[in-house]
Amino acid sequence: MVQTNAAARSEAKRKEILRRAATVFRAKGFYGAGMREIAKGLGMAPGALYYYFESKEDLLYACQMTALKGLLRSAREITATGEPPETQLRLLVAAHLDHILMELGGGLAHVEFHALPKEQLDEVVRGRDAYEKLVRSVIRAGKEHGAFRDVDEKLATLAILGALNWTVVWWKPEGRRRPPDVGEEFANILIEGLKR
Amino acid sequence: MVQTNAAARSEAKRKEILRRAATVFRAKGFYGAGMREIAKGLGMAPGALYYYFESKEDLLYACQMTALKGLLRSAREITATGEPPETQLRLLVAAHLDHILMELGGGLAHVEFHALPKEQLDEVVRGRDAYEKLVRSVIRAGKEHGAFRDVDEKLATLAILGALNWTVVWWKPEGRRRPPDVGEEFANILIEGLKR
Repeated sequence: MVQTNAAARSEAKRKEILRRAATVFRAKGFYGAGMREIAKGLGMAPGALYYYFESKEDLLYACQMTALKGLLRSAREITATGEPPETQLRLLVAAHLDHILMELGGGLAHVEFHALPKEQLDEVVRGRDAYEKLVRSVIRAGKEHGAFRDVDEKLATLAILGALNWTVVWWKPEGRRRPPDVGEEFANILIEGLKR
Repeated sequence: MVQTNAAARSEAKRKEILRRAATVFRAKGFYGAGMREIAKGLGMAPGALYYYFESKEDLLYACQMTALKGLLRSAREITATGEPPETQLRLLVAAHLDHILMELGGGLAHVEFHALPKEQLDEVVRGRDAYEKLVRSVIRAGKEHGAFRDVDEKLATLAILGALNWTVVWWKPEGRRRPPDVGEEFANILIEGLKR
């Protein structure tokens, strides 16, 4: 029980560090951000930060994987609901924005992938591919069910994910538009564009 | 006349350097790229490269401004044609992809803006704002003419520009899909989504 509490505390601390790191990456870019600055924003000694994450690359990788795992989990749940494809796509749009804008405070994709070591980069790319495949399967189902036009599934997926991912460039946590509102309007535009 | 030829040669050389720089930025990220490597790819001595561009930041700024000026020029021409808003938007989508994917060999937006000094960053942001405004004006005109639904103009603009800008992340010059084909399918999806 004590072990469990300690593990939970450690997990919460890791999440807190990732939120802070994501914020600093967003503000200064990956290369402009420093471990010292991230530690300072958390009221931690740099040494304590290194206890949780070995390097800045390690932090970037953990940020990417946190978002990716969330995206994949949501996509698997949504595609298992049995809802009509249009409804599934609408749920996917909302969940996507929630994960990339809210889970770690925004700015996850707004970083240099190049900074990741090859092996970690490959893992991120595999995760992204798996996610893209799930989105594509919903668009394909929509075509098969006759709800969507005969669009190029791959390009339709990339258009939708592009519009969603680009939000990390312009969306500001302090701005007027909340992610659910952005999601609803984006879903209206992007899904209308697929319909017959 | 000799002067003019020299100026034209210098301009062509600058463009050649920018194409090479954009390619290296795309492959390695801004911070991973080196002036030495860019010079080497051009068969130039590093000193000769510095004759044209003072620094890597200077190269990044010139890449950004080249694309931006092209985008603004096209958008001004298109919005002055008097074509119906839907046609204008279709032309804008095609021109946008052509500028960001073809003009400097792809990957222009796939760089760290943070790397630009404040004054240059401000200029890039002003250019982007001016461009966004032109795109928004076409969507507004489409609403006024009754061709488009009552969409949130700002969000519709950001959805379209996001889908377009994200192409620099996934599009590969050696890939199967040519920018005009991507543009046509994107225009079909994105503009259909705005229509009544």
